[in-house]
Amino acid sequence: MTSAATPAPAPRGIEPLGVDVPATVPTHWYNLNADLPEPVPPHLHPGTREPLGPQDLAPLFPMALIMQEVSTERYVEIPQTVREIYAQWRPSPLVRAHRLERSLGTKAKIYYKYEGVSPTGSHKPNTAVAQAYYNAVEGITKLTTETGAGQWGASLAMACALIGITCEVWQVRASYDAKPYRRYQMEAYGSVCHPSPSDLTEAGRAMLAKDPETTGSLGMAISEAVEVAAQDPNAHYSLGSVLNHVMLHQSVIGQEVLAQLKAAGEEQADIVFGCAGGGSNLGGLAFPLIGQNLREGTTTRVVACEPAACPSLTQGEYRYDFGDVAGLTPLLKMHTLGHDFVPSAIHAGGLRYHGMSPMVSHAVELGLMSAIAIEQDDTFAAGLEFARAEGIVPAPESTHAIAGALDYVRTQARDGEVVVIGVSGNGVLDLVAYEAYL
Amino acid sequence: MTSAATPAPAPRGIEPLGVDVPATVPTHWYNLNADLPEPVPPHLHPGTREPLGPQDLAPLFPMALIMQEVSTERYVEIPQTVREIYAQWRPSPLVRAHRLERSLGTKAKIYYKYEGVSPTGSHKPNTAVAQAYYNAVEGITKLTTETGAGQWGASLAMACALIGITCEVWQVRASYDAKPYRRYQMEAYGSVCHPSPSDLTEAGRAMLAKDPETTGSLGMAISEAVEVAAQDPNAHYSLGSVLNHVMLHQSVIGQEVLAQLKAAGEEQADIVFGCAGGGSNLGGLAFPLIGQNLREGTTTRVVACEPAACPSLTQGEYRYDFGDVAGLTPLLKMHTLGHDFVPSAIHAGGLRYHGMSPMVSHAVELGLMSAIAIEQDDTFAAGLEFARAEGIVPAPESTHAIAGALDYVRTQARDGEVVVIGVSGNGVLDLVAYEAYL
Repeated sequence: MTSAATPAPAPRGIEPLGVDVPATVPTHWYNLNADLPEPVPPHLHPGTREPLGPQDLAPLFPMALIMQEVSTERYVEIPQTVREIYAQWRPSPLVRAHRLERSLGTKAKIYYKYEGVSPTGSHKPNTAVAQAYYNAVEGITKLTTETGAGQWGASLAMACALIGITCEVWQVRASYDAKPYRRYQMEAYGSVCHPSPSDLTEAGRAMLAKDPETTGSLGMAISEAVEVAAQDPNAHYSLGSVLNHVMLHQSVIGQEVLAQLKAAGEEQADIVFGCAGGGSNLGGLAFPLIGQNLREGTTTRVVACEPAACPSLTQGEYRYDFGDVAGLTPLLKMHTLGHDFVPSAIHAGGLRYHGMSPMVSHAVELGLMSAIAIEQDDTFAAGLEFARAEGIVPAPESTHAIAGALDYVRTQARDGEVVVIGVSGNGVLDLVAYEAYL
Repeated sequence: MTSAATPAPAPRGIEPLGVDVPATVPTHWYNLNADLPEPVPPHLHPGTREPLGPQDLAPLFPMALIMQEVSTERYVEIPQTVREIYAQWRPSPLVRAHRLERSLGTKAKIYYKYEGVSPTGSHKPNTAVAQAYYNAVEGITKLTTETGAGQWGASLAMACALIGITCEVWQVRASYDAKPYRRYQMEAYGSVCHPSPSDLTEAGRAMLAKDPETTGSLGMAISEAVEVAAQDPNAHYSLGSVLNHVMLHQSVIGQEVLAQLKAAGEEQADIVFGCAGGGSNLGGLAFPLIGQNLREGTTTRVVACEPAACPSLTQGEYRYDFGDVAGLTPLLKMHTLGHDFVPSAIHAGGLRYHGMSPMVSHAVELGLMSAIAIEQDDTFAAGLEFARAEGIVPAPESTHAIAGALDYVRTQARDGEVVVIGVSGNGVLDLVAYEAYL
């Protein structure tokens, strides 16, 4: 993939470098499982339908992440090496949206938590760095993963470069061909990115034999990445959302919000809007605030904002289902549209998932958060309104949270009410979608 | 350009909003003209060849900026409205590049000042916000400008959206067609972007009559933007580099570096590398440090890193020349390759300018900074090395500074020496250029 002039990979970087990390960077991840009134249902083995044991996951994940997946400890210490990397862009800004308030003519106080300052422009590196680290500590030298539009693949590629391991990504063929920028990003970080299906795996070859013209699917790409990881003792597989350990790593977002609101003199967030796809940005933003509700009696409301085209929380069933199309993954108890559901080609690629994080699903079932579905045109209108007032073009995923919040502020918000919007990323590589809307 | 669903422009925003701006955001711009041993030569009227008076510039610029252009005050207070906007992303990070140091095996201390966290991903908003503000205060409701690859046009579009005035951009046809993302960004901010030459101006129509297939030039685009501004009493023209008031606004970069190095316990920057195109990032980064050298006897060395394909400082003459191809602008005393020089199509579009900021040129003549020229392949190799160690894919412009610094560290740096690299922007919308290199 690279010419002779390409620099060699950076040395392995699992030891801390002695960076002076500011105290405002969280020292621990927060685990909502410690505070839930009922435990989240376990993942089940797809063959036996019994709860998964650690050994079932060992071929694909390091033991540290497997133990985090089932942990009920309230706080998990963030390794110093991970904190040092977080410190490059964390804490991410919590900004009072004064100009947006003026433009809306509201007396509510609107804040947005902005994850677009990370090196790849979204919240994804929060877990990518942690996953690359724990794998490297256990001697793994390569991670495989799948990616759709490419935000996750680019973030894992970045994390692997910093930790000094290699990364191999299977990207859904349709995106590989149509949206090459994220692939270029992966390659700039030294990763290899294949279109999926590829002829490098049995699963891919079987699919290509059946339909040589297929443009692939996320389920197909998962199968290829898992197959390669399972056959290589030095490789593991990495997932960017849905699982409990991903929610754990993303909790830095909500913990920073709590500290930043306090520093701004606010007693609590009255209502929080987050976009919901697999659930990692929403869970990371909301779980620390829900935990505070459960422990300390604050009354923060959380609203999950999902696309009307893929409404797992508002229209799906809450039941055990597979995480992938082919039915190879463990069974997860979640809100699902069915693992063979194919959402229409909305621009918010990160929200096109048939299911929802089991922890987010459980929190909704327990009444700890609510959910709304939003039409795509309304999300872009809200995204432009936000961009012109605040200067940031938000990711199409993030515009769902913005649209939910703007509608609430226009119709229901009280004077002085504290409204927090999770802006999960910037839309720089999604400008074509805005142009299509305009 | 926009559908009925497009939100109305934000209200005019010249009054402060009451944002609690952190003390780490500079309160004043620094003006090197106050500390120079000899004054920078004045700009000359193209007809009379006499020094320009304020009235000569009044049709195009507000009086506040005209006075800043000739000011010798050391500090100019930053208006509160501008500081409030700066506070969204300023101070920009000064990061110790620990992993890059490890990868190089050096005992020098490498820091980078990262301007890529701004809403448009570069240092350009530092002056765009100030220019939009001063124009709005003087009653101007529209700014016109030209742009090449589009970083400047997008940044001025963003600033105009926040201040609540309109913005009309002429973009060189070649870039308008080949690199549409920045145009989409301008339109997302509510600006209008025309390909240049256009049929909207006399200059454009004349050019199109002569050569209907022309792909345009920056000089042509300047002529169109100036023509429209000069004919509309409510409009002014805005320039993103070269002029003294632009250097002034960009001084927030270097002032923050001084404070951030002090906070990190460093006595001084021993050597600073900045990329040099029109000079605004370099001047903004370096002038506060040069000023400290002149006033306090520090010994910071500054190295301007320019492309070998457009070597105005290392190969150009130091003389009066026009700022544009057509010879319509005032005469500027600067290092120039001649105003009809056409650089080859290197990827660092922001460095493809025949001249150099008069203040930067003067500083080089006085021996206050030095200059080197770097081949494009070396800049991309350095950019990839930086991306894989530090997680940030730098803009092709910024890779010139990185290449200069890495070569210095590899061949000359002493143990403990403090090396500062100006990373003027991120390369997210330049990933095609990296892919071409790979």
